[in-house]
Amino acid sequence: MTDPTDPYLIISAACHAGLPTERYRPYLEAAHHRAFDDWLGQRGARRAGAVRRGTRNETSVMKWYEDNEEGLRGGWDATQRVKELDGDGVAAEVVFPDADTVDGGTAPPFGAGLDASAAQDPEAAVAGARAYNRWLAEFCATDAERHCGVAVLPVTAEVDAVVAEIHRARESGLGALLIPAGWDDAAPYHDRRYDPVWAAAAETAMPLLTHAGAVPRPEYGGHLGIQLSEAAWWPARPLWFLLWSGAFERHPGLRFGVAGAGCWWLPDLLWHMDRLYLGAHGGRPLSPFAALKRSPHEYLDRQIFVCATAPTRHELARRYEIGVDNVLWGSGFPHPEGTWPHTGEWLRRAFHDVPVGETRRLLGESAAEAFGFDKSALVPVARRIGPVPDDLGQPRNQAPVEASWRRARETGRHWLTGFDFPFVGVGE
Amino acid sequence: MTDPTDPYLIISAACHAGLPTERYRPYLEAAHHRAFDDWLGQRGARRAGAVRRGTRNETSVMKWYEDNEEGLRGGWDATQRVKELDGDGVAAEVVFPDADTVDGGTAPPFGAGLDASAAQDPEAAVAGARAYNRWLAEFCATDAERHCGVAVLPVTAEVDAVVAEIHRARESGLGALLIPAGWDDAAPYHDRRYDPVWAAAAETAMPLLTHAGAVPRPEYGGHLGIQLSEAAWWPARPLWFLLWSGAFERHPGLRFGVAGAGCWWLPDLLWHMDRLYLGAHGGRPLSPFAALKRSPHEYLDRQIFVCATAPTRHELARRYEIGVDNVLWGSGFPHPEGTWPHTGEWLRRAFHDVPVGETRRLLGESAAEAFGFDKSALVPVARRIGPVPDDLGQPRNQAPVEASWRRARETGRHWLTGFDFPFVGVGE
Repeated sequence: MTDPTDPYLIISAACHAGLPTERYRPYLEAAHHRAFDDWLGQRGARRAGAVRRGTRNETSVMKWYEDNEEGLRGGWDATQRVKELDGDGVAAEVVFPDADTVDGGTAPPFGAGLDASAAQDPEAAVAGARAYNRWLAEFCATDAERHCGVAVLPVTAEVDAVVAEIHRARESGLGALLIPAGWDDAAPYHDRRYDPVWAAAAETAMPLLTHAGAVPRPEYGGHLGIQLSEAAWWPARPLWFLLWSGAFERHPGLRFGVAGAGCWWLPDLLWHMDRLYLGAHGGRPLSPFAALKRSPHEYLDRQIFVCATAPTRHELARRYEIGVDNVLWGSGFPHPEGTWPHTGEWLRRAFHDVPVGETRRLLGESAAEAFGFDKSALVPVARRIGPVPDDLGQPRNQAPVEASWRRARETGRHWLTGFDFPFVGVGE
Repeated sequence: MTDPTDPYLIISAACHAGLPTERYRPYLEAAHHRAFDDWLGQRGARRAGAVRRGTRNETSVMKWYEDNEEGLRGGWDATQRVKELDGDGVAAEVVFPDADTVDGGTAPPFGAGLDASAAQDPEAAVAGARAYNRWLAEFCATDAERHCGVAVLPVTAEVDAVVAEIHRARESGLGALLIPAGWDDAAPYHDRRYDPVWAAAAETAMPLLTHAGAVPRPEYGGHLGIQLSEAAWWPARPLWFLLWSGAFERHPGLRFGVAGAGCWWLPDLLWHMDRLYLGAHGGRPLSPFAALKRSPHEYLDRQIFVCATAPTRHELARRYEIGVDNVLWGSGFPHPEGTWPHTGEWLRRAFHDVPVGETRRLLGESAAEAFGFDKSALVPVARRIGPVPDDLGQPRNQAPVEASWRRARETGRHWLTGFDFPFVGVGE
């Protein structure tokens, strides 16, 4: 299992793809072409606004495009894409929308991508999502075993249409569902109106995902620091709305993941939620948390995960609190905040002192289970391109490595193992 | 400085007081008496609603009142209050509104207390706040050196009126300002319209405070777990709105504290904010964070603190990341989630292995500085009632205690000291 000559089967749980926006036209139903052309016409003004507000830096943006011109075509060119995955040692990937978040050049029609919001016109949102989903299914059909496409799902629209889109997306070969992080004026995600949606997601084995993106921007007055300080909170918020309203209890087959938001916010949140539940004699009939039959961490371990793009060593060091199996590594290709095109070096720096067995879980095995990848189809790919533990600087003799994390592992979720606080870090 | 026979000067940075609501009538201007009577009439219905939604448990509430009947009168009876403080070994306190959050029986008029929200009618909010502030000034005038009263400030109202209320409150003897955690439809706290308010707070040396309380309850559908999972986030949110908009840079005399929300959310948030700033070459003219001249942690150390009611050992163990001087302990008297009436036992459990010098900072010295308590007036009180390190189970020989935290202390804010992650916990 921890054979140091066995290549890693690496699955990036967070990558991005998308056509240059104007090219979505043929994937849109004809009734929406005119609205699409109008919408396209307004894009220049939106971009100029971003520059004025100082949230973009024209010089660094141009350099990013120039340095990576060929590889960035992998955002929508399937042949180029596989070359880039190979170069990174990545055997398979989960494909979110918006290849280009720097400049918004590959945004799906009508804002149906990462910035999707329940405040959008529902009809346009559904049309834009369908167009994107049609293109994505085509895109993923080449080398289908290497791409798990995430369908965009405007979940606050009419329930029957949403459920139908889930089944349509599954039949077209897509493997997961992206819902907006916020519900704006629609029903919050604790609402039972969504039960048929969660049931369909469970039935089709398509994990439900949120991704960092939409935020209440008008509140920020152009202060980027405010936005970035809470950018992880908004996509994480549905987690506790689903959890405390019993959605994971009623739909044990439902899987839910938070993507693109790191996982630094999760250990203390889990501790906090478990304490609420256990402190209130959770599970008893008089508990204020009667919608649950078990502790928050049990739902986490059964049904919840994070897709962490380029997680820091700080975040990886807290994996015993989060749960080693609940952190799914992502390269973020082709975003500039990801590890591409230097994934090999990045992995060495992040994982050199992490045990090989845990590295295998974090880099691929957990993602294979969460998204239903066919590992037998991927093993030959991994043998061809996957780095081995030696490449990550991981010692052949793993005993001292395992020992250095022993105390952190044994402390684990300290509130369940009898400790007052976590032990973070290596050491005897 | 760490003499084990020297009593602790304990200041609770988070206590609560308030009259039984109907008794605020004489403190209200006559023009508001009729509206007050109407508002009082609707309180029963609000309480019944809370029981129906399952957020209150009638049996445990009754037991709390019965067990503590005499002490709870200290919520508004100044003589009884000082007895309770003495019994807890607490020399002085910062006094927030709402002695009774279990049953809301001491809420200031028109919702001007902990639940204060910018969504309230501004005229009623100002009238209610003034009534409460008048009563509080009277209440704190007995044993003035032991009570720092927190004036309620409806900060989103008309700026001149708000500034006038700050000066009026200061002249009446109050020492700090409570603003609503949220701004609803009013201007967010990054807005320059508030600059005269922040300037007046700095000029009068009254720290600006938020407190856990108001939340977007209609979004929760009655699920208490959702509410409690994010209850700390809402009062903390103004911290990053003020910080990134440069309020602490423009007003170096302004001090800001988050109360009643613990401090478990702060270490990783600070790490995240510092990383944003330092990663963007913060401070340079082209930085997207040009409103700041220094790192978030520098503003924290200079101007920001948390008033943590009954902090857990988990939170105390992370004091080197937060900054030992930035955590102000609170008893929460007379709230059931606080340490009263068993503060002595509680302190022993929480602090037995914490160095005496740090305990002195956490339990009182930092609060004395933040709120401007007259320590020379409090030392005689502390000599009479304050526990000594022996009472907290702290060893006379402090060398091994200091040594056990050495690694955590040296790692400190790991992103500034060259470590990849914090060292949390005791050990060599």
